[in-house]
Amino acid sequence: MIRLKKILKEGKTIIVPIDHPIEGYFRELEEPRRIVQEIIDGGADGVLLRRGSLAKTYDLVAGRLAIVYRISGATFTSGDMGDQRLTSSVEESVRYDADAIAYTVYVAHPKENDMYEVFSRLVEEAEYYGLPVIGEVLVWENAKVDAFEYLRIGVRTLGEEGAAIVKSGFPSDFSLYRDLVRYSIVPVIAAGGPKMDSPRKVLEFVKAVMDAGAVGTCIGRNVWQQESPSKMIRAMKRIVRGGASVDEAMSELL
Amino acid sequence: MIRLKKILKEGKTIIVPIDHPIEGYFRELEEPRRIVQEIIDGGADGVLLRRGSLAKTYDLVAGRLAIVYRISGATFTSGDMGDQRLTSSVEESVRYDADAIAYTVYVAHPKENDMYEVFSRLVEEAEYYGLPVIGEVLVWENAKVDAFEYLRIGVRTLGEEGAAIVKSGFPSDFSLYRDLVRYSIVPVIAAGGPKMDSPRKVLEFVKAVMDAGAVGTCIGRNVWQQESPSKMIRAMKRIVRGGASVDEAMSELL
Amino acid sequence: MIRLKKILKEGKTIIVPIDHPIEGYFRELEEPRRIVQEIIDGGADGVLLRRGSLAKTYDLVAGRLAIVYRISGATFTSGDMGDQRLTSSVEESVRYDADAIAYTVYVAHPKENDMYEVFSRLVEEAEYYGLPVIGEVLVWENAKVDAFEYLRIGVRTLGEEGAAIVKSGFPSDFSLYRDLVRYSIVPVIAAGGPKMDSPRKVLEFVKAVMDAGAVGTCIGRNVWQQESPSKMIRAMKRIVRGGASVDEAMSELL
Amino acid sequence: MIRLKKILKEGKTIIVPIDHPIEGYFRELEEPRRIVQEIIDGGADGVLLRRGSLAKTYDLVAGRLAIVYRISGATFTSGDMGDQRLTSSVEESVRYDADAIAYTVYVAHPKENDMYEVFSRLVEEAEYYGLPVIGEVLVWENAKVDAFEYLRIGVRTLGEEGAAIVKSGFPSDFSLYRDLVRYSIVPVIAAGGPKMDSPRKVLEFVKAVMDAGAVGTCIGRNVWQQESPSKMIRAMKRIVRGGASVDEAMSELL
Amino acid sequence: MIRLKKILKEGKTIIVPIDHPIEGYFRELEEPRRIVQEIIDGGADGVLLRRGSLAKTYDLVAGRLAIVYRISGATFTSGDMGDQRLTSSVEESVRYDADAIAYTVYVAHPKENDMYEVFSRLVEEAEYYGLPVIGEVLVWENAKVDAFEYLRIGVRTLGEEGAAIVKSGFPSDFSLYRDLVRYSIVPVIAAGGPKMDSPRKVLEFVKAVMDAGAVGTCIGRNVWQQESPSKMIRAMKRIVRGGASVDEAMSELL
Repeated sequence: MIRLKKILKEGKTIIVPIDHPIEGYFRELEEPRRIVQEIIDGGADGVLLRRGSLAKTYDLVAGRLAIVYRISGATFTSGDMGDQRLTSSVEESVRYDADAIAYTVYVAHPKENDMYEVFSRLVEEAEYYGLPVIGEVLVWENAKVDAFEYLRIGVRTLGEEGAAIVKSGFPSDFSLYRDLVRYSIVPVIAAGGPKMDSPRKVLEFVKAVMDAGAVGTCIGRNVWQQESPSKMIRAMKRIVRGGASVDEAMSELL
Repeated sequence: MIRLKKILKEGKTIIVPIDHPIEGYFRELEEPRRIVQEIIDGGADGVLLRRGSLAKTYDLVAGRLAIVYRISGATFTSGDMGDQRLTSSVEESVRYDADAIAYTVYVAHPKENDMYEVFSRLVEEAEYYGLPVIGEVLVWENAKVDAFEYLRIGVRTLGEEGAAIVKSGFPSDFSLYRDLVRYSIVPVIAAGGPKMDSPRKVLEFVKAVMDAGAVGTCIGRNVWQQESPSKMIRAMKRIVRGGASVDEAMSELL
Repeated sequence: MIRLKKILKEGKTIIVPIDHPIEGYFRELEEPRRIVQEIIDGGADGVLLRRGSLAKTYDLVAGRLAIVYRISGATFTSGDMGDQRLTSSVEESVRYDADAIAYTVYVAHPKENDMYEVFSRLVEEAEYYGLPVIGEVLVWENAKVDAFEYLRIGVRTLGEEGAAIVKSGFPSDFSLYRDLVRYSIVPVIAAGGPKMDSPRKVLEFVKAVMDAGAVGTCIGRNVWQQESPSKMIRAMKRIVRGGASVDEAMSELL
Repeated sequence: MIRLKKILKEGKTIIVPIDHPIEGYFRELEEPRRIVQEIIDGGADGVLLRRGSLAKTYDLVAGRLAIVYRISGATFTSGDMGDQRLTSSVEESVRYDADAIAYTVYVAHPKENDMYEVFSRLVEEAEYYGLPVIGEVLVWENAKVDAFEYLRIGVRTLGEEGAAIVKSGFPSDFSLYRDLVRYSIVPVIAAGGPKMDSPRKVLEFVKAVMDAGAVGTCIGRNVWQQESPSKMIRAMKRIVRGGASVDEAMSELL
Repeated sequence: MIRLKKILKEGKTIIVPIDHPIEGYFRELEEPRRIVQEIIDGGADGVLLRRGSLAKTYDLVAGRLAIVYRISGATFTSGDMGDQRLTSSVEESVRYDADAIAYTVYVAHPKENDMYEVFSRLVEEAEYYGLPVIGEVLVWENAKVDAFEYLRIGVRTLGEEGAAIVKSGFPSDFSLYRDLVRYSIVPVIAAGGPKMDSPRKVLEFVKAVMDAGAVGTCIGRNVWQQESPSKMIRAMKRIVRGGASVDEAMSELL
């Protein structure tokens, strides 16, 4: 898959998502150009975003960051974010110079099979244009299921259906994360989840996911809600690319 | 987006909507040709209307006003105006020489994700024909939610999904309007809402939304229910284009 | 045909073509934006141009001039300008906000039937999008035929195939022009041909074609090679719209 | 059907499926390359798998095993595995060098007719490319029906619709299996079902289905959950190809 | 045009072509990976190449150089390099992650109108995918024509048909080059032509074309036949981007 080289450089990646406004109000995202500039300055590999933010920042992004174009969504205001709809197409993704597309499947949601079917079709269409698909797996919060087991099956399933990379959350018992990654048939990148207490906590998390076998991170809030997002990315990069310790990485934040 | 130049002249716009009959009886709209002539005489940039009124007035409108073709709707008589349906297509819009299409999403409505999905698809189809999409955001009145927060998220979401312009109402606490506009990723135009007490009130409203960062207005009733709609438009234009004060604008109404 | 109103205002039209660079070097067309501004200032109804000049001037043209998009061509440098090829499509024309498309058929050219077939298909496709087609008729100079008779048949033929307007040259014996126009089934506009000796000659020509029944002109060189193209257009307009005499029209050039 | 010769060698076949991760967690499938190597070493005829596992093992598989590409699926986590969706296309199957495609129909599922319709269409498309279709028949577990009768009708139906081979489970009363096979209009291969108590039980099962008229097996868990999958395959092959007794076959496991 | 930003950085560009093997034997192109590495090290903006060399070097190029994919060609060995044929498609170009496509028209060639027609169609198809087209203009050497006038018309014509950039040779009377560039409606980049006598001569040429209004260069032989191609690119960049004098640029070659 030709464009994958632009995302997985030397097999590792740091993608910063800014596709959150559909989920609520985020003060920092009032200025997508400022955040994107920070992402570039920090040396991230890619940015994950929607149509509007891409249009607003393309001149900055072009040739500097891989574009991961999110083409699924459900609004927070609808009350069911698990009901993901396709919001674009493979052809539009190509038109917007995407280097990969991202699609989310909510495992255990009543419409899971619909999302799964759309995902499968996307993979085939995207391959025609040489476009990798990043599958995101989340467990529907209203489902009463074994969240770890469902997450693990979901991660593997999207890999079996042709995801080039799977983005997943992590189990509440973090020690199981290694098992999840091992069962995946394609590289796994870690979602960041809610704001953590301190920059050190973020870096400890990055270290932990890399140690557990992830190939990188797709962390948003815990990057762009820092005082200096670019410094945070540089610190993360020390760990993701350089295998540095948390202490070593912390030196980038001084 | 090629046709946008015809709507946002020098970055500002006055659009006058006459798409109201689906919502009730409006005596003034018994004579769409007379109202359209007033809109032209007043020097507005565009008119927002449905299929029938367009057919009835095209010979007046052609080459004089940008055509904003409304292609969603739900009837007042149905009891649920939040259940917006697609009433036309991008191809028909092109056939009718539309310069933009308008589609409404009711935030917090049980079918919000359906509207959101249709909107996303429209944006892609419309771009193929070089047609900008104006997204209108309203909060479903039956929802028990924080209306300002939902409106703000809705405005940003339609921008993220590719609206060229977002038309929105305003929060009951008007002082928050500026925050809403700032969070938007695309230009915002202000809907006019119910009839105001006096022409001065209308102009004060126009002044307030422009000061808060809007790029124009999409005001119907408060224009064509005036004694002289064309004079009212000229007065509004003094503010929107010329940055005049309310007092200065009032001079157009004498 | 909806967009036709923007070209034939009150049934008359002045279109200025700037689609000539394919035919040779024209010093004035080094600055398409300057020429387009003159065309606007002169108050012409439309401009006829190709893809590149349209892209270069759209912001000026939008909402001010009807766009007649030329979608056929053959290069001067190829040695056979009669071998017209289709250079765009109806869908692209819509995308570029064209108000009409122009296609040329060279009568008596060995490939005339090919051009005729393409023209017929274009008319059908264009009607689907509400786009009028302007058919241009020229007699291939290498053909040994009765030029007037061939021109007259060509003009009628494109009308029969659905041209909204036919643009044609004129017979060497100008007195026959009235016969040609009378035989046409749709409105005829007059091409301008090579540079004339003086501005008065141009206006006399305009007067003559209008007297003979044409509904307007599509004159390029004799407009933009004048000292003041905008003044020349204003003078032409006196005749075309106002029915003025040549002397009256000349007053615009002072 | 051209490629069928690569699956049914001398009219018999051993296919090993590894398409299970969509149904749950299987420790052995953490290492698809190891399992595929065992399948090759054991001398199976083919492997049945999904997109991701195929991509992961293609270099091993190519020229050594027939590729049976599964192009239907429904997730365990969705709660309804009977709601099979199409996950690929015939053209992609060709692109991936499949020797056959596998599609599942759940008999008595509320959407059975949908699956049946897709299956019929697949057969026609696949024939165009010379690709055999293996139809898998399962009875939806929530249906209150005569499982044997429904299975028997299902097996025959897919044969009538053009399956080259039908894969089916077996009735709880095994003595009826012979009747089921006899009613089929195309060769039947036996699915393996849940893990059996011992290797001997597996071989007894293989012997029984072959005696009942099946042409081979499509057994997964009972192969790759053995200590030595390759030895198990060799033992099965003694029976399937050589007509050996269970005792004779057991000698391969020593 | 979205991808154009990756080629015209700050409005200027250095593209190095290695698409020459179709024209003869070039010892340096025995090692495309080495040459591409030099192009990267020198800091060029893009590389222009054909299918095979792209496949051979993609892992180096990805994310480091804009890919200009040549999709026309005629062989030297055929005896008529002016008879350019289409060698790929827009869709394949997208699949190969091209940032632009390059197509050549030979002016005054008997098949010029064919090339012109293909070019026009390519522009429209490419725009659908957001892919800029670089038009190359050459005058057919067998034609007895005014080479400068034909080149100038050809350059303008491809711009009119929608080229994003035109690549052209230069007139034998170099003083006319400025006139040619001025007549173009889109940015012009300079082809390099045959090997020059010394590195200084190359830099003098680069200085001259930039002074005449070109936005960059597309020079092959005079780059990769230097002792150190990367140093030569750095020297050229001093002029193209930095506006340096030839003497200043020469310092990069020490």
